[in-house]
Amino acid sequence: MDLKSKNLSDEFFMKIAVKEGYKGLGWTSPNPPVGAVLIDPLNKKIIAKGYHKKFGYPHAEVEAINRAKEKAKGSILYVTLEPCSHYGKTPPCTEKIIEAGISKVVCGIRDPNPIAKGGLEYLKSKGIEVKVGVLEREVKILTRFFLSHILRKRPWVIMKVASSLDGRIAVSTGESKWITGEKARKYAHKLRHICDAILVGKNTILKDNPDLTCRLVKGKNPIRIVLDTYLSLDPNFKIFEVNKNKKTIIVCGEKADLQKEKILKARGIEVWRLPLEREKIDLNALLEKCNENNICSILVEGGGKVHGSFLEKNLVDEIFYIIGPVIIGDREGILAIEREPIKSLKEALFLKNLKVKKMGDSFLFHCFTNEGFKLLNTPL
Amino acid sequence: MDLKSKNLSDEFFMKIAVKEGYKGLGWTSPNPPVGAVLIDPLNKKIIAKGYHKKFGYPHAEVEAINRAKEKAKGSILYVTLEPCSHYGKTPPCTEKIIEAGISKVVCGIRDPNPIAKGGLEYLKSKGIEVKVGVLEREVKILTRFFLSHILRKRPWVIMKVASSLDGRIAVSTGESKWITGEKARKYAHKLRHICDAILVGKNTILKDNPDLTCRLVKGKNPIRIVLDTYLSLDPNFKIFEVNKNKKTIIVCGEKADLQKEKILKARGIEVWRLPLEREKIDLNALLEKCNENNICSILVEGGGKVHGSFLEKNLVDEIFYIIGPVIIGDREGILAIEREPIKSLKEALFLKNLKVKKMGDSFLFHCFTNEGFKLLNTPL
Repeated sequence: MDLKSKNLSDEFFMKIAVKEGYKGLGWTSPNPPVGAVLIDPLNKKIIAKGYHKKFGYPHAEVEAINRAKEKAKGSILYVTLEPCSHYGKTPPCTEKIIEAGISKVVCGIRDPNPIAKGGLEYLKSKGIEVKVGVLEREVKILTRFFLSHILRKRPWVIMKVASSLDGRIAVSTGESKWITGEKARKYAHKLRHICDAILVGKNTILKDNPDLTCRLVKGKNPIRIVLDTYLSLDPNFKIFEVNKNKKTIIVCGEKADLQKEKILKARGIEVWRLPLEREKIDLNALLEKCNENNICSILVEGGGKVHGSFLEKNLVDEIFYIIGPVIIGDREGILAIEREPIKSLKEALFLKNLKVKKMGDSFLFHCFTNEGFKLLNTPL
Repeated sequence: MDLKSKNLSDEFFMKIAVKEGYKGLGWTSPNPPVGAVLIDPLNKKIIAKGYHKKFGYPHAEVEAINRAKEKAKGSILYVTLEPCSHYGKTPPCTEKIIEAGISKVVCGIRDPNPIAKGGLEYLKSKGIEVKVGVLEREVKILTRFFLSHILRKRPWVIMKVASSLDGRIAVSTGESKWITGEKARKYAHKLRHICDAILVGKNTILKDNPDLTCRLVKGKNPIRIVLDTYLSLDPNFKIFEVNKNKKTIIVCGEKADLQKEKILKARGIEVWRLPLEREKIDLNALLEKCNENNICSILVEGGGKVHGSFLEKNLVDEIFYIIGPVIIGDREGILAIEREPIKSLKEALFLKNLKVKKMGDSFLFHCFTNEGFKLLNTPL
């Protein structure tokens, strides 16, 4: 990279750290993805980069310092998240920073985790210059799943829809292959990789018998969560084939058949009994349970009623809405989103800062909801 | 304009002529909009531009020649449509071109009208160099309403939809104000200006009591065509207020009440009785009747069932689909498009070359259908 032509600001280097951080997204949970970069303060050249590769592996700053070796001495560390000063799965990063002789630490955001916070104060007390709040919004977006897990005690919820231009996901017979193009479908699998869990309703299983795995791109499989209030699904569907890389959790109501639960459990499928609310799984209880199980992000992939339920409860933080180049129009076709009737347009979900991007022959809309923005705007 | 920095090809000047032509769009029907530009062959400078301003007014080439005065001598004429060589509302343009001493004529397309064709041969016979087929596709798009009128003997049909991201045009109570933003609504009025007629179904009148006029931008009002099979609409709706700038045609079936027809006619409203097909107005018969009445373009503005009927009959040529930044999701909400059920996705309308453009906070999708492309690909 020709650094001479760039504006070598803190933001410039933090952007590189953020980019590093994204490499770990999907692998680090329940840890956050974090990126780091070491800069020579004299010539502003990058000495080393690093990112948190996987839960239990070294933190980003340690990765960068290990690569820089003795060159780390006197350098400036840019890191998306405040370095930890506690013993977790790995020793505290602050000690490593002090040992390496780093002169200055620039962070994107403070660690929201009370037991990890305080790294900056500690570094300062050891004579290291510190700065925080660089590219805060971008870093919070990188770290959103973790922020939700820690600050709200529930996972970050992404709603993903793939529909025709007129809001249908299938014709009246149920046929839906393919409304969106290959590039868009690959992107959807990338979303599966970055999320800890994927969630669908029973009808989606009945209609499509999907795998719900990450196949079209390299990545990990999310935990499959299926809402099946009465445990009525036949155990021959693909989602009931489980192994260490293909986990499934069936969520049912408290009165669901005990015998069926036994059969599922014997096959290695987890069953969560949760309270119902008007004959539907209580989604707040579900998200709480997910959080307890270190599921920090959920990709809600439908169908329409499931999307509707999450919207009614105001539990959606982010939306990926893919539109394929087709008008179905079938009055008996299946709709992408079906919530209870609303009386006024005011009750609808208005989307601020909605963006669109062409993706092959399809179109990807993306936005955060007010609920998502609320978290991103929380001071740390 | 700094012409030196441009590639001064035929296409370059034809593009200017096309741009001129668009200035007349909406005013010239049943004539086509046409643009012209005169160039000095020595220094490639523009001598004069012109466009067909209104039906009955001088043609584009005459406008340009009149402006150029004696400078037209020896110049090159770029004109989107082959100059006419017949006496219509105005004398033949070919004579004007010969008189002006123009040395070369470059056209976008041949005139599809048999009675106007032959201008190029005539000019050639008088020693003027001629060329045709420059920016043909762009010129055909400029001229599409006229091409449809002449070649297919039916109007060009534009379907315009304004919906939420999830395909709804109103919540269950019918409230729909506003799903799309102001900029998008202005654009929709521009479409009203360029089209000869606007067409809606009875339910749209019942639901919204719309004006269906061009108010948000400067332009002309389209003729309002309302499908009301049994003449059941109460005559107090806004569309029944007519004057010379606000015309209304009510289309009904052959068995509609004669007394009601009389009342409407007495108020200056035109009533067209057309055959029914499965209790719906026969749309082919309607388009034929429109063509006979010099309606060369129709903007179909809904509701969902009307859109569905046009789609079922494969009568849509072009689509403007505006999406507002909102998810309604209301399972009893009103859908943008409702056609009879289809068995397979193959029967859905796949859109080639669909394009999207941000328009304020909304998104404008645009495309031609296969039906539209068929006309645009017809050799002239």
